[in-house]
Amino acid sequence: MDVSVIVIGDELLIGQVTDTNSGFIARHIAPYGWQVREVFVIPDEREAILSAIDQAMAHSRVVLTTGGLGPTKDDITKEALCGYFGGEMRMVDSVLDNVKEIFRKRGLQLNDLTAMQAMVPTSARVIQNRVGTAPIMWFDDNVRERVLVAMPGVPFETSEMFVSEVFPQLLRKFASDVAVEHRTVMVEGISESDLATRLEPWESALPPYIHLAYLPTPGLIRLRIDGRHTDAAFLRSEVERYTAELIGLCGDRFLYSGYRTPAEILLERLTEQNLTVATAESCTGGNIAHLITSVPGSSAAMLGGVVAYSNDVKQRILGVLSHDIDEFGAVSIPVVEQMAEGVRRATGADVSMATSGIAGPGGGSAEKPVGTVCIAVSTPRGTVSHTYRFPGSRERVIDRASVTAIIMAVRNLQHK
Amino acid sequence: MDVSVIVIGDELLIGQVTDTNSGFIARHIAPYGWQVREVFVIPDEREAILSAIDQAMAHSRVVLTTGGLGPTKDDITKEALCGYFGGEMRMVDSVLDNVKEIFRKRGLQLNDLTAMQAMVPTSARVIQNRVGTAPIMWFDDNVRERVLVAMPGVPFETSEMFVSEVFPQLLRKFASDVAVEHRTVMVEGISESDLATRLEPWESALPPYIHLAYLPTPGLIRLRIDGRHTDAAFLRSEVERYTAELIGLCGDRFLYSGYRTPAEILLERLTEQNLTVATAESCTGGNIAHLITSVPGSSAAMLGGVVAYSNDVKQRILGVLSHDIDEFGAVSIPVVEQMAEGVRRATGADVSMATSGIAGPGGGSAEKPVGTVCIAVSTPRGTVSHTYRFPGSRERVIDRASVTAIIMAVRNLQHK
Repeated sequence: MDVSVIVIGDELLIGQVTDTNSGFIARHIAPYGWQVREVFVIPDEREAILSAIDQAMAHSRVVLTTGGLGPTKDDITKEALCGYFGGEMRMVDSVLDNVKEIFRKRGLQLNDLTAMQAMVPTSARVIQNRVGTAPIMWFDDNVRERVLVAMPGVPFETSEMFVSEVFPQLLRKFASDVAVEHRTVMVEGISESDLATRLEPWESALPPYIHLAYLPTPGLIRLRIDGRHTDAAFLRSEVERYTAELIGLCGDRFLYSGYRTPAEILLERLTEQNLTVATAESCTGGNIAHLITSVPGSSAAMLGGVVAYSNDVKQRILGVLSHDIDEFGAVSIPVVEQMAEGVRRATGADVSMATSGIAGPGGGSAEKPVGTVCIAVSTPRGTVSHTYRFPGSRERVIDRASVTAIIMAVRNLQHK
Repeated sequence: MDVSVIVIGDELLIGQVTDTNSGFIARHIAPYGWQVREVFVIPDEREAILSAIDQAMAHSRVVLTTGGLGPTKDDITKEALCGYFGGEMRMVDSVLDNVKEIFRKRGLQLNDLTAMQAMVPTSARVIQNRVGTAPIMWFDDNVRERVLVAMPGVPFETSEMFVSEVFPQLLRKFASDVAVEHRTVMVEGISESDLATRLEPWESALPPYIHLAYLPTPGLIRLRIDGRHTDAAFLRSEVERYTAELIGLCGDRFLYSGYRTPAEILLERLTEQNLTVATAESCTGGNIAHLITSVPGSSAAMLGGVVAYSNDVKQRILGVLSHDIDEFGAVSIPVVEQMAEGVRRATGADVSMATSGIAGPGGGSAEKPVGTVCIAVSTPRGTVSHTYRFPGSRERVIDRASVTAIIMAVRNLQHK
């Protein structure tokens, strides 16, 4: 089943906000064999909205719009939809009650603009928005057997209501008879083109119902096997077989299978081995700790960490020797190893990761250019470390260094 | 000048990668009076690519594509462009030399697949990609006076080459005679609809060449004034006047003007007052430190921080009294104030922020539900604190709590 998504809002086209709703929708519907076939990002303009709806309705049986439903003057989606599907705007009491209830819970005063949220085209069926004030509107085009659902743009409202109400109702309306299977294989330490060369003969011989996709991310390549077939049992065994072949071809570059972040894998390994972890970060500035603590339940293994940005903090809290900072510099193997060992002492953790580097744009030298990052991993079996050179912007260096440190720890927990 | 952007790649439509290129392009071209009028996100399929090009060329004089230029089998953009603009594929020596040079610098072995990067349609003019292997291709449609430029999908390659080569060449081709001015005003502590109600009479009376847009973000509302006029001097004075009026209407909800993140403003205030800062984070898990250290030059004021995820680390490194954790719980005002004061002692910083809360999904109780976060800010003039309830997912609670802590510190540095 194809879905077209229309993302509405001037704020997206001036680049101050990034659309995450379409990606959320795509991830959520994929296991059901549904796919987003296109995304239109358009301004809060009547003509642009009508033209995008026309195209989307021509391409897909399900059209989802997000955004443009706020109470402010620049949001005109509701009027445009009323023009497209016909009918007129009327006040819906149940929506007004919902708006009042949401405001009461948030301790806010209702005002006239917000009450306008309860105006809905007569051509729409309302799905009550439990987590926000903008009503969700379901439009049927019975002639062409198409459905358009208009949802708010606020990501947590869209995700909550799409999962709990909108998608279940769409699934009931459109049943599917094609089985779908996905597998993800994570590979590390090889360039995309080298990997592609290695896999080319195998990939060319794949049957038509199996497809391989490359998804490079900072420090990792995700390989995704997608299968589609009417025979679900046959498809599952085929996908298992090709996944096993793929893992074999990746050899020691294979890191793990399944779609999980490196931080999730690290926490899994730690929990299995009943180990705790801590971080000591200079150039990554808290990002490794943030990636780990973003995983629900991380507190079972994560004790905490130290952001040792200044040399003084490296010495005071982590016990790095000032003599070594003077002799080797803060960005050096002796210092990063002492940071990793120091944070284990300070927190009592079994395992630690430490980073010290030059994220840029300033601070580089001929000997240690921007992008130079020393990373250490310490465990009860000892401390290992390596110096990397990462390309790109400050943001990219921080991202790459953070993921690389986590992967180093994962690799270290593998080979016991 | 209108620009249509076509973002190509299956990985974007299954939601494993989020498009950031179109936002980057939009932000970069806005000061020149150029705007992205639409973004199409489409799969690596010939028909979809040709159809999107058709529409984009109908709407805009400049069409930019990103992605689909990699060496793997699923990237077919080049062939589709060759079909659209005519000509045939041929090997371009200068591109091959560039590919070899990039591989040599990265210490990688050239393979046949990568060499295919040097195949380019004869209808394209090549712009050499200095930071990657995929060539950038410029296509002229002289009949309709349109230009299409195909760029790679890797964000750092696109941003680097768009800024240094592609956009300057586009600017030379299309001169503009309309002046553009933008101002951003950041507002905090008021709902979008309350603010809209307050501003409504003023907004309705704005002249046609001035436009106001609302851009809510976690914990903050960005108001953006956009002006367009042929008389640049007149426009500038008008935009200044309306911005001043807007700031006056926002009253004490006004936080600062200009498009900067709360972390950038905090660092600015700290540097002005010659103060240093540190963080003590429980539920935000390093995200506040990450937001601060993501700003280039943050090391001038940022000493570091402690991610005190476990109670033991709160006691060991920050000196929180175990008695208070037992009596009030880790998520409490006494504990978060001791964390804020403790990290100032441990690092020697003048100013600190501390958080302790329940980010969820587990760990909530009737008294302290998921979303409860205690935040403290400590300065030489004392420590202030507050308990918040943030709605939404774990990610959203962490984001809101992090931004709120930084804004609390900014407010505290304002009122000396």
